[in-house]
Amino acid sequence: MSAGTAVPTRLRPRVEQSLSARLARSAAATGGGCHLRTDQVAGWLAERARAHRFRVERVPLDGLDGWSFAPGTGDLRHHTGRFFSVVGLAVTVGEGPVPEWRQPIIHQPEVGILGILAKEFDGVLHFLVQAKMEPGNRNLLQISPTVQATRSNYQRVHQGSGVAYLEHFTDRSSGRILSDSLQSEHGAWFYRKVNRNMLVETEADVPVAPDYCWLTLGQIGELLRLDNVVNMDARTVISCFPVAEPGTGALRSDTELLSWFTAERARHEVEARTIPLADVDGWERDAHGLARPDGRYFRVTGVAVEAGSREVTGWSQPLIEPCDTGVAAFLYRVVDGVPHLLVNAKMEAGFLDRVELAPTVQATPRNWQHLPRERRPAFLDTVLAAAEEGRVRYEAVHSEEGGRFLNAEIRYMFVEADDTVAPLDPGPGYQWATPDQLSALSSHGHYLNVQARTLLSCVNAGAVRL
Amino acid sequence: MSAGTAVPTRLRPRVEQSLSARLARSAAATGGGCHLRTDQVAGWLAERARAHRFRVERVPLDGLDGWSFAPGTGDLRHHTGRFFSVVGLAVTVGEGPVPEWRQPIIHQPEVGILGILAKEFDGVLHFLVQAKMEPGNRNLLQISPTVQATRSNYQRVHQGSGVAYLEHFTDRSSGRILSDSLQSEHGAWFYRKVNRNMLVETEADVPVAPDYCWLTLGQIGELLRLDNVVNMDARTVISCFPVAEPGTGALRSDTELLSWFTAERARHEVEARTIPLADVDGWERDAHGLARPDGRYFRVTGVAVEAGSREVTGWSQPLIEPCDTGVAAFLYRVVDGVPHLLVNAKMEAGFLDRVELAPTVQATPRNWQHLPRERRPAFLDTVLAAAEEGRVRYEAVHSEEGGRFLNAEIRYMFVEADDTVAPLDPGPGYQWATPDQLSALSSHGHYLNVQARTLLSCVNAGAVRL
Repeated sequence: MSAGTAVPTRLRPRVEQSLSARLARSAAATGGGCHLRTDQVAGWLAERARAHRFRVERVPLDGLDGWSFAPGTGDLRHHTGRFFSVVGLAVTVGEGPVPEWRQPIIHQPEVGILGILAKEFDGVLHFLVQAKMEPGNRNLLQISPTVQATRSNYQRVHQGSGVAYLEHFTDRSSGRILSDSLQSEHGAWFYRKVNRNMLVETEADVPVAPDYCWLTLGQIGELLRLDNVVNMDARTVISCFPVAEPGTGALRSDTELLSWFTAERARHEVEARTIPLADVDGWERDAHGLARPDGRYFRVTGVAVEAGSREVTGWSQPLIEPCDTGVAAFLYRVVDGVPHLLVNAKMEAGFLDRVELAPTVQATPRNWQHLPRERRPAFLDTVLAAAEEGRVRYEAVHSEEGGRFLNAEIRYMFVEADDTVAPLDPGPGYQWATPDQLSALSSHGHYLNVQARTLLSCVNAGAVRL
Repeated sequence: MSAGTAVPTRLRPRVEQSLSARLARSAAATGGGCHLRTDQVAGWLAERARAHRFRVERVPLDGLDGWSFAPGTGDLRHHTGRFFSVVGLAVTVGEGPVPEWRQPIIHQPEVGILGILAKEFDGVLHFLVQAKMEPGNRNLLQISPTVQATRSNYQRVHQGSGVAYLEHFTDRSSGRILSDSLQSEHGAWFYRKVNRNMLVETEADVPVAPDYCWLTLGQIGELLRLDNVVNMDARTVISCFPVAEPGTGALRSDTELLSWFTAERARHEVEARTIPLADVDGWERDAHGLARPDGRYFRVTGVAVEAGSREVTGWSQPLIEPCDTGVAAFLYRVVDGVPHLLVNAKMEAGFLDRVELAPTVQATPRNWQHLPRERRPAFLDTVLAAAEEGRVRYEAVHSEEGGRFLNAEIRYMFVEADDTVAPLDPGPGYQWATPDQLSALSSHGHYLNVQARTLLSCVNAGAVRL
């Protein structure tokens, strides 16, 4: 029918079959890799922390250098109009305990790059991670992706130095892309924010800068068992690693799972629109920032940063500070030998498309204390009681995006459940899915929310065995 | 690790392997099925047309019963607040020939159901289609899905009769869902509209009402070669039929294709927000509706309908009437025996997520006449010259959604290309993908736009052989 059948090499397989096995081999490589042993990472992080000057200081919102409340709207903006702004959001939902509300929210329409560079050493994939300071992290320095750059960063709005290793993610000829998708961030705090999550494999020689090191996926899994070591950006990129084996069966076929999700998305009526921050009633400015008098949800606060390892040496910025530590937990059951996670189709006001798949429980318990038990999130009590009952298979506290959130910590858990707690035919809003099914969805955007992705990264890296 | 390994039947395959073969068998069944021969369909449609009273009359916008321009905003709304409204849209884009504009647009946040019911007769899948009148179709009556219902329809806002066969799509116990996804509609005329596209197979006895008949996929393919017989809603549901065989190779792996699309989506900066219709400058109201003095793009116009086969017996409504017939064409090449389509990552202002995959050419030539050749859409001249050069493999005029658009016709084409016209390394914004790759993406929303889906439906139903 056409010329060209003489050169059959122009076609390639649609899916690289060996990739999941190569990732599994890297996940099995614990203890040490080509660079550092896992037990040396803490020392390396401490050394990197000493090598830099890091100081974060709270400042009032009206003392933020370069930031101000815009006349009229009251929106909190940088004088350049870049980076991000804090605006208002008006939300109306068709169901749920709170039918409408207004809140401050971060607006940052640009798409950033979160990229991890991979390379085989001695036949095992290693991943280049960075010891990176973020002002919102309680311990400041955590392990981050190779590249973690807003468009402002990499277009040099900061006037700082260039972003190291960026060329591996922007120049398509320099490596092989193993995954690349736009993934949402926190819908409660960000208005329709997405970042590009990339995994790129190279065969080139890669010089390792002082703040960087190569780790196997298994080593990252070991570090994911510790509190506050692997940052959110690294976790979300790892959650998108193409680890899934398509062969295994599941309680629900892929079509049934998608159909259930389609129905959940279709039935939610959500209207969320940005409004002037000045029009957000019920929030008040005080010396510490912008918050609700009842102390619930979060406050908008400010910090001044002095740093030696960032693109610029000092800056001020607003941060969102949640009122308390959150909980994000998957209930799981092993059905006929195959682990299944109980996912929740969850509405978050800042999502682009109404609902995404969240962990079984995702809540800040303190925000729900004032409500009677029957109006609190389903399964929350089960998860909070799981430790006493010996059902917790994984538990660690991780920080959310330290560049936008202050001390935003979530206790991530996998909790084993049985038929009395979580029947195989769960109620509306919930469904069972295998990690492989979630992994397949993670190659597309707007399916898995960022908390579900953190938990999936723990599965991918072998931090938890279900 | 858990109880339950004694009942292995609880797991099922994630993908039903035989489904694509069953659909292929139905696509191969041309000429006749269990009900009508294909050559009897025209007579059946004519008979159904005679059985009903259909009358559509143009009326001025201020003469639409139940509709009015809202004080202040000027938005065109129904007095109940339901159905849909015509509002304004303000658009700013980072690139392209027109960096910003305002336009009227249809706003209809509810999610409708487009559903086709399938059933095997003599081992061949048949699909229950309806002879349905839509006021915007030039020939009024076309073949539509089993169910085509807005939420207003099926929640009985019309106060009319119930929607036939709806229970097959809303009651999950009554059949088996073969595909179910939220798909976008025209981003130039609709603000973030999606409908739920469903294919459900039943084994139950299904009484066939007078306006309905069972056709094989191959029969629908034969009808898709004719102008204005298969309506847009049927085409989009058929485009999502799970026909793909995962085995075949492609010029780009699935990951490469997704990565290219991710980059295209990330690089487009689009801001589109609804504004009062009264704030849309450059559009003027006259006796025929709301339009631009230069006659470009479309007009908002009105019709009064008398009908006997709809849920209600008469109504008035606004419709969008494009200024001229459009063109939507895929250039294709057979590479090493495998056909590839040249897809375009296209921005449309009404899309939820900036860009979707569109045909190689999607344009209304008349809108571009005033621009110099180099600013006209790429490949447009190639497609318009294809007939003379004997490169056209498929050509038919189809109507777009006749419930919202008046005489909105597009000439759909497949045009064979070679290396001189369309090299295998196409320029920015374009990429080669196999129909199987597009079919895999059609199980998710917001990848394929509605024009690309019409062309894919022609492949799925065998209306074109590439």
